Amino acid sequence: MSTSAHVNSFTISLPGWLETELKSLPPAVPMVEDRVALVIRLAGLNVTHGTGGPFAAGVFETATGRCVSLGVNRVVPDSCSSAHAEIVALSLAQRRLRTYNLGGDGVPEHELVVNWRPCAMCFGAIPWSGVRSLVIAGSGPEMEEITGFDEGQVPGDWKARLESLGISVRDGVMKEEALDVFRDFARRGCTVYNGRGAGSARA
Amino acid sequence: MSTSAHVNSFTISLPGWLETELKSLPPAVPMVEDRVALVIRLAGLNVTHGTGGPFAAGVFETATGRCVSLGVNRVVPDSCSSAHAEIVALSLAQRRLRTYNLGGDGVPEHELVVNWRPCAMCFGAIPWSGVRSLVIAGSGPEMEEITGFDEGQVPGDWKARLESLGISVRDGVMKEEALDVFRDFARRGCTVYNGRGAGSARA
Repeated sequence: MSTSAHVNSFTISLPGWLETELKSLPPAVPMVEDRVALVIRLAGLNVTHGTGGPFAAGVFETATGRCVSLGVNRVVPDSCSSAHAEIVALSLAQRRLRTYNLGGDGVPEHELVVNWRPCAMCFGAIPWSGVRSLVIAGSGPEMEEITGFDEGQVPGDWKARLESLGISVRDGVMKEEALDVFRDFARRGCTVYNGRGAGSARA
Repeated sequence: MSTSAHVNSFTISLPGWLETELKSLPPAVPMVEDRVALVIRLAGLNVTHGTGGPFAAGVFETATGRCVSLGVNRVVPDSCSSAHAEIVALSLAQRRLRTYNLGGDGVPEHELVVNWRPCAMCFGAIPWSGVRSLVIAGSGPEMEEITGFDEGQVPGDWKARLESLGISVRDGVMKEEALDVFRDFARRGCTVYNGRGAGSARA
């Protein structure tokens, strides 16, 4: 426990290797499958570099595939339980476009691409972000079974709930490739943090 | 739409007036009612200073009342839809204590105090933070009715769900004082942002 003074700000940063990746990225990724392949690759690199959990996300202009932001899970390195890949990517996109609403007037439609379904927090965060579509590699029980991560209390009909808010959901793009990253993560025995979620409830 | 380069980090900062408040804060706030009164006062000041929405939150050591962090809603000024008061306070506390888990081994129990119930995102974020209790001024429909803010898709039994994870919930501490802040906010005609939430669904 620190006895230091109050903290007035917090910063979430991408790891150095991802900053390098960004420089070699094509300006647009037109095919949805290629957007998913990209976030799966970054999730795997986040594991091999030891810079966070096995999750990555990107915000793209839906129509053109312009890559607005990429994020990875930064919970452990940035000491921030809300630094999930989705929150990082959405916040970086909003910072870059200087708007809290990626679906506001005069802004092209944006899509959030993630290598797995959102947890309870990110399910709640997506409607606030303004994105109009969500693309995920998978949403079954496999990720939790393989890694031990807890998705939290997400409603069973979460896809229908997002759709009812005008956010389309596409699931199952490159699911096996996404699972390979989780299997590699589990083999390495990396940190699994669930807070007061299932991990603690079982303890 | 910006054509600038990729952004590699984002920072959420407290407004200047709150940094000043922090310097004159007593080191501990032993009474729970005083903790709630403090966040209600800060929520009101966030409105009168025009530095964000009418919400504030604090993280306290449950037993001693030591104030670890205070946060206010920073969605509009920081262009970040997830910069709700709860996320700001929890992230600042985690940064100060240099841990992503406010309930980890060797850490005293922590309490999150907020001037209203959590939205869907913050409901999901609280279990990840490690806090062991939540104290709120109120949770009825009044806030949404008065301000137009949308809480999102929070389960009806959200309190029981937090309790099942070992997070106690105390509701109704200084509710009328909390509502006064929302009434003042509504009178001023300040920005209400709901993303793809109810506001957009009605539009």
